[in-house]
Amino acid sequence: MTDRSPLRDLSAPPFAARHIGPSDAEQARMLETVGYESVSDLVDVAVPAAIRTATPPVLPEAVNETEALAELRSLAGRNQVLTSMIGLGYHDTITPGVILRNVLENPGWYTAYTPYQPEISQGRLEALLNFQTVVSDLTGLDVAGASLLDEATAAAEAMTLARRASKAKADVFVVDADTLPQTKAVLATRAEPLGITLVESDLTGDLPECFGVLVQYPGASGRVAGFRDLAERAHALGAQVVAAADLLGLTLLAAPGELGADIAVGSTQRFGVPFGFGGPHAAYMSVREGLQRQMPGRLVGVSVDADGHPAYRLALQTREQHIRREKATSNICTAQVLLAVIASMYAVYHGPDGLRRIAQRAHRHAAILAAGLREHGVEVLHEEFFDTVLARVPGRADEVIGAAAAAGVNLRKVDQDLVAVACDEKTTTAHLSVVWEAFGCFGVVVDDLDRVTPDALPADLVRTSDFMTHPVFHSHRSETAMLRYLRRLQDKDIALDRSMIPLGSCTMKLNATTEMEPITWPEFAGIHPFAPKDQVGGYLELIGGLEGWLAEITGYARVSIQPNAGSQGEFAGLLAIRSYHRSRGDLGREVCLIPSSAHGTNAASAVMAGMRVVVVACDDSGNVDLDDLAAKIDKHRDALAAIMVTYPSTHGVYEETIVEICERVHEAGGQVYVDGANLNALVGLAKLGEFGADVSHLNLHKTFCIPHGGGGPGVGPVAVKAHLADHLPAHVSAAPYGSAGILPISWAYVRMMGADGLRQATEQAILSANYLARRLAPHYPVLYTGRDGLVAHECIVDLRQITKETGVTVDDVAKRLIDYGFHAPTMSFPVAGTLMIEPTESEDLAELDRFVDAMIAIRAEIARVASGEYDKTDNPLRNAPHTADSLVSGEWSHPYGRAEAAYPVPSLRDNKYWSPVRRIDQAYGDRNLVCACPPLEAYED
Amino acid sequence: MTDRSPLRDLSAPPFAARHIGPSDAEQARMLETVGYESVSDLVDVAVPAAIRTATPPVLPEAVNETEALAELRSLAGRNQVLTSMIGLGYHDTITPGVILRNVLENPGWYTAYTPYQPEISQGRLEALLNFQTVVSDLTGLDVAGASLLDEATAAAEAMTLARRASKAKADVFVVDADTLPQTKAVLATRAEPLGITLVESDLTGDLPECFGVLVQYPGASGRVAGFRDLAERAHALGAQVVAAADLLGLTLLAAPGELGADIAVGSTQRFGVPFGFGGPHAAYMSVREGLQRQMPGRLVGVSVDADGHPAYRLALQTREQHIRREKATSNICTAQVLLAVIASMYAVYHGPDGLRRIAQRAHRHAAILAAGLREHGVEVLHEEFFDTVLARVPGRADEVIGAAAAAGVNLRKVDQDLVAVACDEKTTTAHLSVVWEAFGCFGVVVDDLDRVTPDALPADLVRTSDFMTHPVFHSHRSETAMLRYLRRLQDKDIALDRSMIPLGSCTMKLNATTEMEPITWPEFAGIHPFAPKDQVGGYLELIGGLEGWLAEITGYARVSIQPNAGSQGEFAGLLAIRSYHRSRGDLGREVCLIPSSAHGTNAASAVMAGMRVVVVACDDSGNVDLDDLAAKIDKHRDALAAIMVTYPSTHGVYEETIVEICERVHEAGGQVYVDGANLNALVGLAKLGEFGADVSHLNLHKTFCIPHGGGGPGVGPVAVKAHLADHLPAHVSAAPYGSAGILPISWAYVRMMGADGLRQATEQAILSANYLARRLAPHYPVLYTGRDGLVAHECIVDLRQITKETGVTVDDVAKRLIDYGFHAPTMSFPVAGTLMIEPTESEDLAELDRFVDAMIAIRAEIARVASGEYDKTDNPLRNAPHTADSLVSGEWSHPYGRAEAAYPVPSLRDNKYWSPVRRIDQAYGDRNLVCACPPLEAYED
Repeated sequence: MTDRSPLRDLSAPPFAARHIGPSDAEQARMLETVGYESVSDLVDVAVPAAIRTATPPVLPEAVNETEALAELRSLAGRNQVLTSMIGLGYHDTITPGVILRNVLENPGWYTAYTPYQPEISQGRLEALLNFQTVVSDLTGLDVAGASLLDEATAAAEAMTLARRASKAKADVFVVDADTLPQTKAVLATRAEPLGITLVESDLTGDLPECFGVLVQYPGASGRVAGFRDLAERAHALGAQVVAAADLLGLTLLAAPGELGADIAVGSTQRFGVPFGFGGPHAAYMSVREGLQRQMPGRLVGVSVDADGHPAYRLALQTREQHIRREKATSNICTAQVLLAVIASMYAVYHGPDGLRRIAQRAHRHAAILAAGLREHGVEVLHEEFFDTVLARVPGRADEVIGAAAAAGVNLRKVDQDLVAVACDEKTTTAHLSVVWEAFGCFGVVVDDLDRVTPDALPADLVRTSDFMTHPVFHSHRSETAMLRYLRRLQDKDIALDRSMIPLGSCTMKLNATTEMEPITWPEFAGIHPFAPKDQVGGYLELIGGLEGWLAEITGYARVSIQPNAGSQGEFAGLLAIRSYHRSRGDLGREVCLIPSSAHGTNAASAVMAGMRVVVVACDDSGNVDLDDLAAKIDKHRDALAAIMVTYPSTHGVYEETIVEICERVHEAGGQVYVDGANLNALVGLAKLGEFGADVSHLNLHKTFCIPHGGGGPGVGPVAVKAHLADHLPAHVSAAPYGSAGILPISWAYVRMMGADGLRQATEQAILSANYLARRLAPHYPVLYTGRDGLVAHECIVDLRQITKETGVTVDDVAKRLIDYGFHAPTMSFPVAGTLMIEPTESEDLAELDRFVDAMIAIRAEIARVASGEYDKTDNPLRNAPHTADSLVSGEWSHPYGRAEAAYPVPSLRDNKYWSPVRRIDQAYGDRNLVCACPPLEAYED
Repeated sequence: MTDRSPLRDLSAPPFAARHIGPSDAEQARMLETVGYESVSDLVDVAVPAAIRTATPPVLPEAVNETEALAELRSLAGRNQVLTSMIGLGYHDTITPGVILRNVLENPGWYTAYTPYQPEISQGRLEALLNFQTVVSDLTGLDVAGASLLDEATAAAEAMTLARRASKAKADVFVVDADTLPQTKAVLATRAEPLGITLVESDLTGDLPECFGVLVQYPGASGRVAGFRDLAERAHALGAQVVAAADLLGLTLLAAPGELGADIAVGSTQRFGVPFGFGGPHAAYMSVREGLQRQMPGRLVGVSVDADGHPAYRLALQTREQHIRREKATSNICTAQVLLAVIASMYAVYHGPDGLRRIAQRAHRHAAILAAGLREHGVEVLHEEFFDTVLARVPGRADEVIGAAAAAGVNLRKVDQDLVAVACDEKTTTAHLSVVWEAFGCFGVVVDDLDRVTPDALPADLVRTSDFMTHPVFHSHRSETAMLRYLRRLQDKDIALDRSMIPLGSCTMKLNATTEMEPITWPEFAGIHPFAPKDQVGGYLELIGGLEGWLAEITGYARVSIQPNAGSQGEFAGLLAIRSYHRSRGDLGREVCLIPSSAHGTNAASAVMAGMRVVVVACDDSGNVDLDDLAAKIDKHRDALAAIMVTYPSTHGVYEETIVEICERVHEAGGQVYVDGANLNALVGLAKLGEFGADVSHLNLHKTFCIPHGGGGPGVGPVAVKAHLADHLPAHVSAAPYGSAGILPISWAYVRMMGADGLRQATEQAILSANYLARRLAPHYPVLYTGRDGLVAHECIVDLRQITKETGVTVDDVAKRLIDYGFHAPTMSFPVAGTLMIEPTESEDLAELDRFVDAMIAIRAEIARVASGEYDKTDNPLRNAPHTADSLVSGEWSHPYGRAEAAYPVPSLRDNKYWSPVRRIDQAYGDRNLVCACPPLEAYED
């Protein structure tokens, strides 16, 4: 017999070893390059002692992937998946298997970044253009964007858009009394700091002076009413008309644009996107011609590439237009691209006829349901409805709802006398029977009713116009055709499944399969956001657990995961500060200090929260200029509401003075908001709440592994100290728990990493950034560094001198990286003419070296431009990216070789990404906003 | 209010509308081309009345995808997933999420075909080469193949290989008494018709004269014993030594090759492949230098392409060698590629250290388990074991096993006194506690035992040699790196997610997501093949249902799904015929008539079943020559066992004479075997069992939508009439229900299509084949047709005259199709110099036209060769496929243009597949075996 191998030495390597790219041996080689003995030596120098925590987070001991899945299955088992007929803007839907598997469960789609680099994003840009076409066609409006966060925030965006677009003087927005309650709540949250008065109205009488009117179409009560007349009255007042419309209903009902709406908003959830206990889903907005340049969010447009071939791109001009105005009112960045893609593919797969049939079927079930209720003497309130029936059962609502739930169906309690029942794609006559019996109606014969019951759509609102006539909605009707369309689009793009995406500040790290698996389990995916609490025990435990862990990690007292994007978290945090000051009678505190290096979103959020932005200068090292800070504090002392800073700074440096900054602001009565965008550099080493911050938002789609989805979903929890806990707004997003459906991802990540794993990830992220900085420094100046020349988790390489000397721009380098198979780093943020590189902990040494080798090879190409060996304007950098077509077709007239263009390093011969288009013709300004909203200066007043 | 839309008109389109490619409008256009008013008109002419069924199959009414998934969830819910410690060659394992999602759940991998076209198969060939390396390294033998069906059939293949390789005279094979029982049973099934005598032995004493010895290593009892001495004794007798070895155990134990084995076989299931109630899993075989040319199954080898770059290919020479021998003994075709890929990726992801740790951990748990039992007075039979502990509990086995099952753990009952417990990758100390308590051992302290318990591996068998030293096993340790490796390999290949794969006889149709989803649910994936019946109610109902439906569809009395490949189904069916004759005292009936057009597998199976093959000629139309048939029947009347025919014939034609053929054979006392390879042309229109056949095998991986997986899994149920039902062999595959884990696919297909949908699919397949034939006919002669010039579900285009006139071969056309983005049709089967094209019903008109347009464009290219416009040897056909590298790098010296090479039709500019290698240098004969085993003549004696 042999010796023993003790059991404790035989455990599977922790998940952290799969999440973190470099092996121990690789880590040692990287440390050697950077010049430190150990990671802790490096971290001790890199991270200022003043911010290091003495009490590392205490988290449950890490479990392995199998155990985490078992725990998640157990949590899932404590959710009950009933048939939901609750409605209220959330309707059950069938995600076609081919879309579920090949989009929502496919890293080729979900690990992609926002399509700011359009050449490597043509696949998802096409999907989003399809989305826009669907929305524009169905709403009957000229221009649709892609996409917004949820129907309620989209309605709020429409409100502010209406204000911008209206010449009316009154700061009044009229809201249909039949609007979804969550929309009303979010409108109220948004209106108050902007000084907008909301007036609720049944819209039948005279309108007050107002800049806009919102009509819910169909109403929350199910009622379908037209608004041609209303629109005329509103327009006569100079007001804009916003229709919050059900996209599926619009396949049968006259389009909002046909009824006079200027703006339409709504959810696309019921186009194949699972409930997810409230999200994520994509909202839409479309507008009439004339408003498109003021729309919030992203807009995909068609352009041409350098060869004159059509190519898609984000058209951000409209956004820039509006943010340059004095009153910026949207802070939206990350939206819900992955979900918009799913909704658009649902439309592609079903086509107009399929969508119409799905709508008719839901409608028919509702009509028959109503007839059955009436037949048995139950009062149905509306004659005309689409999919939702409102019934009066005096005093019996709980009883009816309880009976239905006992039979597996959730209905909506409007009040003690009213019950609403919404039909959807999944409704069957068996469900109707359950509902009837719950109402006490026995023996209803569906077929008989079907024969005698007319439809319940208003005759004057029946849709007559075509929609979705484009061939794309008629060409992918078989599963095989759909599968290939999805594959073809996916293959056009670079996502994390192909190469690293070294975007500074965006933290494109591993989205592990084990983290992703649970989100499509029915027990998480199939829960309506307003399902009764006793059916969602698993979700509530998961959410509570995650909020607690995040509080422990950040050193805050309370965390709310409701904000469904980082921008929403910022807004919520600033509202908490505002509420705090006001609760103390400090009504005049309205100035928000923001360093010039901040993400633009910060300023936009501050404006939305009713604050005035005052910019604080940064010094040459990229740090906050303490003298300017002191001056600004002095100047605005009594009005000082807050300072918003990012830590580590957007320059990728741990500022030594952060503690002092916090103290000075506090001393002046202000609150400190620390943007958590760069939290990946702190987890396990420092706690935001300990070194002076009062409130932060986190980005679960950065630090906590929710995939970027090609531009969303994001989750932006807001975290506050105890004194702000009661000041958090309750309604910044439509759903009570925001994008609850993807929280299992972050839950699993923390559960499998544990405190040690999280700290190791941070340490590796710092080591990897410093490794890149050291290897690149001989070739490109590294712009900002802290102690001992170290950076934090990202580094900025400066091309300004190179550009001056050679004419080669950051753009040229970014596009040339595509030829090398890479997504570009963040361009020209926070400093124009630079590239900000964040490797994250998940990239192994081979990939880091491949990237460095590409950058060095590009530097050599630049040198050839400098030396004259390459032509100044006709060289591989300026002509990048090179398509296969451009290399193969026609004469080759360039003074460099084809192989030089395509295979500048030998490894490309085995693993070549071919860009589907050449460089796209668009203004430089459209591109330099990667992961950051526009320049701050635009917001100042 | 509006009019009503009756509910009945609003049902979702049936699944058939998604499965079948062409829409109604497209179908109408196709009918116009073919010249028929309706599909039924076409079918009435195409399909002979004599075979049409008067009683179409009666199946449950079709359900939609949502309903089918609900039914499957309900069936799944009736399986109980207990922790399995049963062992017996099946061990629980963790499929790493990144492999599960990106291979097993990814159509890019699972819809690929067997890599007979190596240029578009480099990804999976690399994965299989990794597989071979793992097996070769771990077994310490020179050459490994990829892959075999299961351990038991692999052992049977090893037995016959040993017989071929041995010079010993005795037809005796000695089998270790400690061999897995299912292996013994399959060996017995295989040995009997070949006249091999099996001798069971404990291998300690003198060996009888024999050609081979099989040793189980470790034994089924768990015992680990070396066999160096045994090998010497066997070799002295001229016998070959076969080791059936546990691949995971070999990370700790001396390799079979090091102990003197000539051949090693075993399962790779525990390398990350789920139980699936018995399969599919990949088996392995490796051999010492000298035996590789006689190995059964596929062997991947490294070659070079036309540019001299390394390229992978199947090296079939060995196989050809052995089938040209007088005594062919293997009929293996489809193997288990998808599962071999998973196993190889598991090894890539864990590396040698990870595998060793997983093995050590299982071993350690077993050692501690044994110590705990002994501590409490339970007798453990073996001192030396790897992962399985055998305990004696006189008379108490049921009690112990019942107690463990009640606590969630399945153990193995050896007999009333013996219980075996197998530890695996998932075993934890909590499981040990359950087991101890089930044995009545309470209060065992694991840590204490761990400290004092030595390992239980024999010191002289501890492995000292390295394995898996190749860099590929050391480079993909992070999930990110693994994900990208999988994506990179996938991108090299053409699968159904990219384009149609028009392989005649292979029926590459849609593998719908809804069909695929259930197979990775734990309730189907996590069941051990020997789990107690009361835990597998869902599986048994599903299997019973599917067998019943298949019987109904084919007109047979009984169907068994046990054969885990078509070849095994053939073998089982022929054994039933053999048994039937022998049961009637007809011992001399041993001749099997096979038309010259038959799949080569037929003959191989007949030989394995102890029959003599007599070839029947075909006439010029490809039909069986009735005169020759009569002559052969006359000549062999008393010896006539059976005829094997394929229907429709391998020429893609409905032979009119099939009924007469059956009658003549029956009249002579023979049985009729109809190969079900072409069943896709019959379902719903004709029943094999009705027009004269006695037995068939079906290919669920053709007609019933199990994906080809890049070369397997397949499932080949055998179907028989009542008089043969009791003659079906019970042990043709290792597991009782074969590859049960993938049966939900076919179940879902039938459930969602219903009888109407299945018939429509058949009709469309016939229409699509005729559409292709009509469109191609002006350009290429269509070789065989039936009435009114119609084909069945596939058509053969004849290039022989073209080749004669221009020198352009089928190979050139096949490789040129790659440049056009297509997988080639079946080449040179059943007629050399032709292409057999099967579109299936799943391809829509756009894809059919894209294929036809490519073929027409290629014909125009051929014309240019003929006219001299293209050089005879330096033209786009001969040089195909063109890699991007070959177009971009170096000088272009060809007399045609680069763009002509890459983009012969404009649509390729938007959707171009780039072959990763140029044409691979290999003998033509290696390639012409697509989907068919080698020429029949080789088998005649």
